Amino acid sequence: MDSGLTNLRLKWLGIDTQKEFVVYMRSDCPVCISEGFEALTRVMVRVGNTTIIATLNVIHSDLLARDEASLSTSAWNKLEAREGDEIHFSHLQPAQSMSRVRAKIYGETLERGDYDQIIADIIDHKYSTPELAAFVTSCAGERLQLDEIIALTRAMVSTGSRLQWNREIIADKHCVGGLPGNRTTPIIVAIAAVAGLAIPKTSSRAITSPAGTVDTMETMAPVNLSMDHVRQVVEQVGGCVVWGSGVNLSPADDILIGVERALDIDSEGQMIASVLSKKVAAGSTHVVIDMPVGPTAKVRTPEAAQQLSRYFELVADAIDLKVKVILTEGIQPVGRGIGPALEAADVLSVLRNDQDAPDDLRQRSLMLAGSLLELTGQAAEGDGPARADAILRSGKAWEKFYAICEAQGGFRIPGKAPYTREIKAGHSGFILSIDNRRLAKVAKLAGAPHDPTAGLMLQAVPGHRVESGQPLFTVHAETRGTLEYALEYIDTQPDILEITS
Amino acid sequence: MDSGLTNLRLKWLGIDTQKEFVVYMRSDCPVCISEGFEALTRVMVRVGNTTIIATLNVIHSDLLARDEASLSTSAWNKLEAREGDEIHFSHLQPAQSMSRVRAKIYGETLERGDYDQIIADIIDHKYSTPELAAFVTSCAGERLQLDEIIALTRAMVSTGSRLQWNREIIADKHCVGGLPGNRTTPIIVAIAAVAGLAIPKTSSRAITSPAGTVDTMETMAPVNLSMDHVRQVVEQVGGCVVWGSGVNLSPADDILIGVERALDIDSEGQMIASVLSKKVAAGSTHVVIDMPVGPTAKVRTPEAAQQLSRYFELVADAIDLKVKVILTEGIQPVGRGIGPALEAADVLSVLRNDQDAPDDLRQRSLMLAGSLLELTGQAAEGDGPARADAILRSGKAWEKFYAICEAQGGFRIPGKAPYTREIKAGHSGFILSIDNRRLAKVAKLAGAPHDPTAGLMLQAVPGHRVESGQPLFTVHAETRGTLEYALEYIDTQPDILEITS
Repeated sequence: MDSGLTNLRLKWLGIDTQKEFVVYMRSDCPVCISEGFEALTRVMVRVGNTTIIATLNVIHSDLLARDEASLSTSAWNKLEAREGDEIHFSHLQPAQSMSRVRAKIYGETLERGDYDQIIADIIDHKYSTPELAAFVTSCAGERLQLDEIIALTRAMVSTGSRLQWNREIIADKHCVGGLPGNRTTPIIVAIAAVAGLAIPKTSSRAITSPAGTVDTMETMAPVNLSMDHVRQVVEQVGGCVVWGSGVNLSPADDILIGVERALDIDSEGQMIASVLSKKVAAGSTHVVIDMPVGPTAKVRTPEAAQQLSRYFELVADAIDLKVKVILTEGIQPVGRGIGPALEAADVLSVLRNDQDAPDDLRQRSLMLAGSLLELTGQAAEGDGPARADAILRSGKAWEKFYAICEAQGGFRIPGKAPYTREIKAGHSGFILSIDNRRLAKVAKLAGAPHDPTAGLMLQAVPGHRVESGQPLFTVHAETRGTLEYALEYIDTQPDILEITS
Repeated sequence: MDSGLTNLRLKWLGIDTQKEFVVYMRSDCPVCISEGFEALTRVMVRVGNTTIIATLNVIHSDLLARDEASLSTSAWNKLEAREGDEIHFSHLQPAQSMSRVRAKIYGETLERGDYDQIIADIIDHKYSTPELAAFVTSCAGERLQLDEIIALTRAMVSTGSRLQWNREIIADKHCVGGLPGNRTTPIIVAIAAVAGLAIPKTSSRAITSPAGTVDTMETMAPVNLSMDHVRQVVEQVGGCVVWGSGVNLSPADDILIGVERALDIDSEGQMIASVLSKKVAAGSTHVVIDMPVGPTAKVRTPEAAQQLSRYFELVADAIDLKVKVILTEGIQPVGRGIGPALEAADVLSVLRNDQDAPDDLRQRSLMLAGSLLELTGQAAEGDGPARADAILRSGKAWEKFYAICEAQGGFRIPGKAPYTREIKAGHSGFILSIDNRRLAKVAKLAGAPHDPTAGLMLQAVPGHRVESGQPLFTVHAETRGTLEYALEYIDTQPDILEITS
């Protein structure tokens, strides 16, 4: 019910509250008074035919006249508002499904219908920020039963859109976070496309790491393609590696992931639902999941990995998605480069069959590509890696990757950083271990991923002997300042590479 | 570290975001650019010698000049800012203790030191709203172990202030929410003061109910007293019933309760910590807790009540507070009135020993007052209620209550509503039950507690027979509109009082 009495007119104030929708109104305006609205009340706001839910900030000054209202920039854009537009207000009913979230908080197990309602209300922006935080917390750790994860995944699948491809099999891969330099995607996509698979891969940029697949790919080809362009590329060359951000496939997931990140909370169930619902939304039918396991990776023990992979496969089965989870070694960085252009250099040397190409990146890519070939019936059980190896050796994967880059807008050679500095061993000995997290921090302080050629190149790996003064790794930076920044940090961390004494 | 480069000057915009601190800055201002601040970042803000943490809203218009900044009204007041004041910004380090909250979310049990840190960070406003929601959720239901409740209570006690009274024993009482008309406090205070106890009772206003103790008391005497005035009253007459809001005894609790209410989440552990830490802060030494148990009360089963009362007493013991929990019947409203003035009428008729005074309110008050007399050594074990009864019958409790009201600023007779309407039984039969929640809703729709004389007066109680056309209750209202509002709702709810057919 709109407040029929008086309507207000919109004035632009240009206040940016990011994704949070805020509406501004005078405390003495007729709507505020007649409806009994107070500051921080959440209200329904309509402009034209679009309605959103926004938080009310009350104005006690002449910023607005009594018959004016304003919106935060995100709300303004969402409502496609213009100055002078009429704006209508009505009371918001609390989200009914919050009673089910409370039940979950108190320890109950929820049903399919509960998750459907919760996800629908979240997409309608009916949850306030603390309510979203409460829901995420109530599902955190291992609090979701298998049936609940399936219900949550189904709810997310049914509320999102779904890309249609006119192919029976759409291949895909995913990596469950957490290992620097693990840039297998471009290699797998190239091999799979040579084998005749359609593999329209959408990836993400780095959030907390020194490089995401998209950051790396962007040093070799354009990645910000329209959906039409993506279809054209896949039609023409069978695969692509593009930025998935614009596509907005899973609106609920985007909201929940934002809250999880703000709280830095992991939820096994929400991760499974998030990954699998996005795969379904992307139109994928067969997915290989790379799950690195190691003490500084996202999945830390073999036991945790076993359970997580079993859950991934069971949930996938329930929603008719073919999924194979591959546990991989997650102890040390993959390849030698860390940072967009440096990781791209590793990728290119593997694709080109260079003599000194990093063997770990090559082997991982072949194992994962091989599994994908087996899962999609392109190779017999056990023959996948050998078939992938043959495709890579033949040079066809490199040709295919070049063709993909050209189709995406043109292949380019990754740049090189103008400032570099070798970090040398302080004494001789065997390298015992590498701290992935601190190594990633060095690359970020050097400017990665913002500066595409920044990062570091490893020159020594665990198990090998180094002599005093021999280089351990080289820092790459685009400015003197960022180089110094990284070096200052390294000075305080003598044991990033631990060497026997 | 302040940003040394450029400082901004404050301009008043008058944007009211309630308790949320918000700072406004141009996106192209020197501080935003040099510090890399983005919208919704939380930053440290200093004006003069006071620093707060605020959320940044970025301005993309001429609301502010490039060298100006503004604050939400609550932040402006907190910083005692004036237009033209210099404002300084610095980066906020994430609250370290959130890592312990995450541990709790994943199922760990926390230690004393963890709760100390968490509570200290909450008081310093280092937690964002979603972080507070995550903490509250992680403690919800029965997720806190006994040792954790003790640790949380201790942390709250040690961070709050503590009122000092020059008496060895300070008596107090508390009711664990949820029963309309349960207005025993003024009666208990009067009896205890006659017995020679010091009982400086601070109470609260209604939040979701039709009347709080303070709303009821206010129809008989002023309740908004300065701390000096409260001391003077207690010195003079031994007791008081005043509004505790201005005193700000437990800053952490005020923040947490706000979040719990917004989420409508109950937490056994946080309730115990909240109640007991506030009692310690108020300087109380001996406390009787009234815990109504019933299907529509806050505590629903005798089993839950047993555990909760055991925990209350164990935690109290750990912090050297003498506490006695009394389980009371929580099935039907207490007294006959619901609403501030109507409940005051019940209180006065009990104090005056009126023939038709509601016996349930009288009996409960005597039982609770009696327990307090026993707990404080003013009566032998088992003799408390009889001693309380003697004091009440003697007329001394009424004299004392009158003196308390006079000392608080002057006794006054509660008003009467100009509009009333009797609601009659549709058929004859026995009254089976009363729905407390819907009855409370009727009183609120009629205007309580905002309109002090609004509410309803019960004329029939469960177990008694009514004839068709006999009055069940009378609605009281201050305006025709609110009366109609309440009557419309009653029309849709024929079974608020369930009658046998």
